Amino acid sequence: MNIRSTTKEDILSAAEAIGPYIHNTPVLTSKYINELTGSELYFKCENFQKIGAFKARGGINTALSLSEEERSKGFATHSSGNHAQAVAYAAQILGTKAYVVMPKNAPSVKVAAVKGYGAEVILCEPTLEARETNLARVVDEIGAYFIPPFDHENVIIGQATCAMELIEEVPGLDALIAPVGGGGLLAGTILSAQLFSSGIKVYAGEPEGADDAYRSLKTGIRVKSHVPSTVADGLMTTVGKITWEVIKDGVEDILVVKDEEILRAMKLVWERMKIIIEPSCAVPLAAIIKNPEVFKNKKVGIILTGGNVDLERDYFSDLK
Amino acid sequence: MNIRSTTKEDILSAAEAIGPYIHNTPVLTSKYINELTGSELYFKCENFQKIGAFKARGGINTALSLSEEERSKGFATHSSGNHAQAVAYAAQILGTKAYVVMPKNAPSVKVAAVKGYGAEVILCEPTLEARETNLARVVDEIGAYFIPPFDHENVIIGQATCAMELIEEVPGLDALIAPVGGGGLLAGTILSAQLFSSGIKVYAGEPEGADDAYRSLKTGIRVKSHVPSTVADGLMTTVGKITWEVIKDGVEDILVVKDEEILRAMKLVWERMKIIIEPSCAVPLAAIIKNPEVFKNKKVGIILTGGNVDLERDYFSDLK
Repeated sequence: MNIRSTTKEDILSAAEAIGPYIHNTPVLTSKYINELTGSELYFKCENFQKIGAFKARGGINTALSLSEEERSKGFATHSSGNHAQAVAYAAQILGTKAYVVMPKNAPSVKVAAVKGYGAEVILCEPTLEARETNLARVVDEIGAYFIPPFDHENVIIGQATCAMELIEEVPGLDALIAPVGGGGLLAGTILSAQLFSSGIKVYAGEPEGADDAYRSLKTGIRVKSHVPSTVADGLMTTVGKITWEVIKDGVEDILVVKDEEILRAMKLVWERMKIIIEPSCAVPLAAIIKNPEVFKNKKVGIILTGGNVDLERDYFSDLK
Repeated sequence: MNIRSTTKEDILSAAEAIGPYIHNTPVLTSKYINELTGSELYFKCENFQKIGAFKARGGINTALSLSEEERSKGFATHSSGNHAQAVAYAAQILGTKAYVVMPKNAPSVKVAAVKGYGAEVILCEPTLEARETNLARVVDEIGAYFIPPFDHENVIIGQATCAMELIEEVPGLDALIAPVGGGGLLAGTILSAQLFSSGIKVYAGEPEGADDAYRSLKTGIRVKSHVPSTVADGLMTTVGKITWEVIKDGVEDILVVKDEEILRAMKLVWERMKIIIEPSCAVPLAAIIKNPEVFKNKKVGIILTGGNVDLERDYFSDLK
């Protein structure tokens, strides 16, 4: 399929299919943060989602779209983050195996979480090459089906169900904002805004240290590789080929923020909203705080993407 | 009034009075924690309450019960914790002043929070004597009304509205559990269980390093002073005279837990439920995890009391 010809029905069918396995997550507000930003913010809490992140949506939607035979030999992926858990969870609920290639320096808590869903973890050297080689081996030898983290139609459509729920729950939104890494969530958000609203603008937040999508948008040429460096560990991937087809003229703007701004926004949410969000998740709020004029007096939906943090790590002590 | 003759109507009236100024906080569940404990747990999230803790209920209820004249000269209290913010918030919404005596070693973030509600902060030496002397001066010289942190009928009745909401929202509870410090919340919880249910048992969790209520219960003689030492900074107070009247034969049992158990339970909630709770708030869950046989297969309401933590502090690195 061509992702740009996605229909309402495609997203509604995905929502119905994944419904039994995911939460329709709550939408929270904060009077304090509204006053601080001068806008009316609605936080869609995917940190409360199964596996602690929106990635459950795309992973399960892709898994469910496979035939019995494709499912039977298991799923494979490489990831050190939330997608690893999403694929492991999808395999668990469909009663098949998951093979997850993870870099051997991945935090032990993340490896344990993936194993907790019954997945087999294959540790490799922490290079993209080693990850791809190991993945290819699992796919070749075992015949497991590769579920990619973002650059796949069914992944994008799965992620689109999140914005669809938010648009349904909060009428009259002026804008939506999501972070962009590989672009699966952003592309899905754009599709839902186009299909389920008349004119909600979609913005993205991106870390300055991984600003490939920003540079792609400004130059009109998709950046195909970059060397990221950011605290937002979920946004280090390069924007995808399929996701870019949707993003390139569907996004209103991509707003870039520094790591310190990301951590400040993250701390603000922990302190004031009493919920745990991960650094990548704080990027859109950081973008709003940095660009208040863009969102002033606007009703804005923010997708809080996930809450999987390393609680042993000290995120905030350098902020003053 | 005699606190033991509190009626349904007293609590319902308090709920109506404070209704415009507080949240009916959400109740969350966790499949993972249910499986871990073998019980069915319902978490009443007072960490999402105004000022980040249940204390808003008792503070506002007491403030609202005062005459115009009593209110006019402002409110006074001494506290380095959530009660300070509750009194400051009550004064703000009633358009009067608050005078809060705080130890000069109180975390600057807490002092700032109290000032944020427009209160005047009076810093003193970090001793109970200095706190009481300074408070007495404010009451004498200014005529401000002292709102005590727990040992007052209207404070207890205000806190009782929390368990009332939980009993209303989750039918068929077998038990409720709250932490005990001065006993305001515990006494209120017992009153609501007695008045709004037929036979819900009420348990308390208490830190081993501040086990005055536990010792009072076991000996039958109220401990009137003790030297607490615990990570649960909200539970260092000694159980009150009025609160004890309700607790002494209204509580099913008081379960004591160690600091390490408290921090493990706190980490579990942060990790699995993605919400911020403070150490004192984790005490009941720690007590359930330590005593699974008491709660096995039971439907249990846990009051999550608050979420005001010092994010610069490293709570978890010593746990392994």
